[in-house]
Amino acid sequence: MSPEQSRRSEKARQAIIEAAFAICAELGFTATTIEAVAARAGVGKATIYRWWPSKAAILLEGVEARRDAAVGYPDTGDVMADLATQAANVMQLFDSEFGTIWRGLVAAAQTEDVAAEGVRRILRDSIDECVARLAKARDEGQIRRDLDLELVVALVHGPIHQTWLLGTRPVHPAFVRAVLQALKPSLQTPPACHEAGT
Amino acid sequence: MSPEQSRRSEKARQAIIEAAFAICAELGFTATTIEAVAARAGVGKATIYRWWPSKAAILLEGVEARRDAAVGYPDTGDVMADLATQAANVMQLFDSEFGTIWRGLVAAAQTEDVAAEGVRRILRDSIDECVARLAKARDEGQIRRDLDLELVVALVHGPIHQTWLLGTRPVHPAFVRAVLQALKPSLQTPPACHEAGT
Repeated sequence: MSPEQSRRSEKARQAIIEAAFAICAELGFTATTIEAVAARAGVGKATIYRWWPSKAAILLEGVEARRDAAVGYPDTGDVMADLATQAANVMQLFDSEFGTIWRGLVAAAQTEDVAAEGVRRILRDSIDECVARLAKARDEGQIRRDLDLELVVALVHGPIHQTWLLGTRPVHPAFVRAVLQALKPSLQTPPACHEAGT
Repeated sequence: MSPEQSRRSEKARQAIIEAAFAICAELGFTATTIEAVAARAGVGKATIYRWWPSKAAILLEGVEARRDAAVGYPDTGDVMADLATQAANVMQLFDSEFGTIWRGLVAAAQTEDVAAEGVRRILRDSIDECVARLAKARDEGQIRRDLDLELVVALVHGPIHQTWLLGTRPVHPAFVRAVLQALKPSLQTPPACHEAGT
């Protein structure tokens, strides 16, 4: 492929992902069709099927790119504050069209293999990033040494993500902070008792 | 309605719920149709639509009945053990066809109002039951007095339900116990420091 062809291909790929995002945000995952995506992106259906097996695959590629750009872990030296910041950023991303699309993919993952594998791959990356941040904090003495760090990821993100996904209450930054605050005694190295007379 | 007619109606209702469960467990939520449910239950489609607006509504009624029968909270006097027992019972229920149907309903809830309202109603009941068990434990001094009990429900059930729903790792009873074990310092009243020389 010539450099010119390669640039045109990349432009078409981006147009298809943008079109899929826009239509899914508007109509929801179920009502999104490859026909509509092709029409909005100005390409033929065959072009789409040459690059992706299904609408879930297109959306997953867009989700991965946007997620990587938006939700890394800061490192201010205070791991509990950094976990709260990152989780609040994820919730802010979920408030945008990204959230509608993520809901659609999680729903599709309950019944479709391509969606299920893609969602698990994205979650695996998210878990690994969180574990890396927690491992550094553990080395610095901020996280208990006896904890399985993947379990800690579930303890932090499970209540927040689950509450958002099932809509049992609104997930405001205050809720995120309350979760992290409540988890402190479980996650942090316990303070030593001050003994009388020493 | 005569008692005989009323018995016949109730029998038909149960047959419809059973048929919807069997078909959904077999083919998944998306592929389940009112036509197929009517055929398997030996009733007309009009009979079904007289009682329920959609397949989600039929399945929700079945889910509520089965859930009520299976997953109450024991009270052995040890709240952390009781929370682990109840959560392990829920996961056992999720290993059956019930789990397939709950996945379908949660997926549908991301895009359909009837499913979303039904899922939220079931979760509201679940949260209230858990809060009642936690309130008793708090009165007995087993749970910290400064905790919002609905937040505690999210801390306990969020990591377990979310891990099951997203399939990030298998949810065995050992995982359930590990979650509860890790949460102890956050949930339980902290032990007093023993001061030297007193």
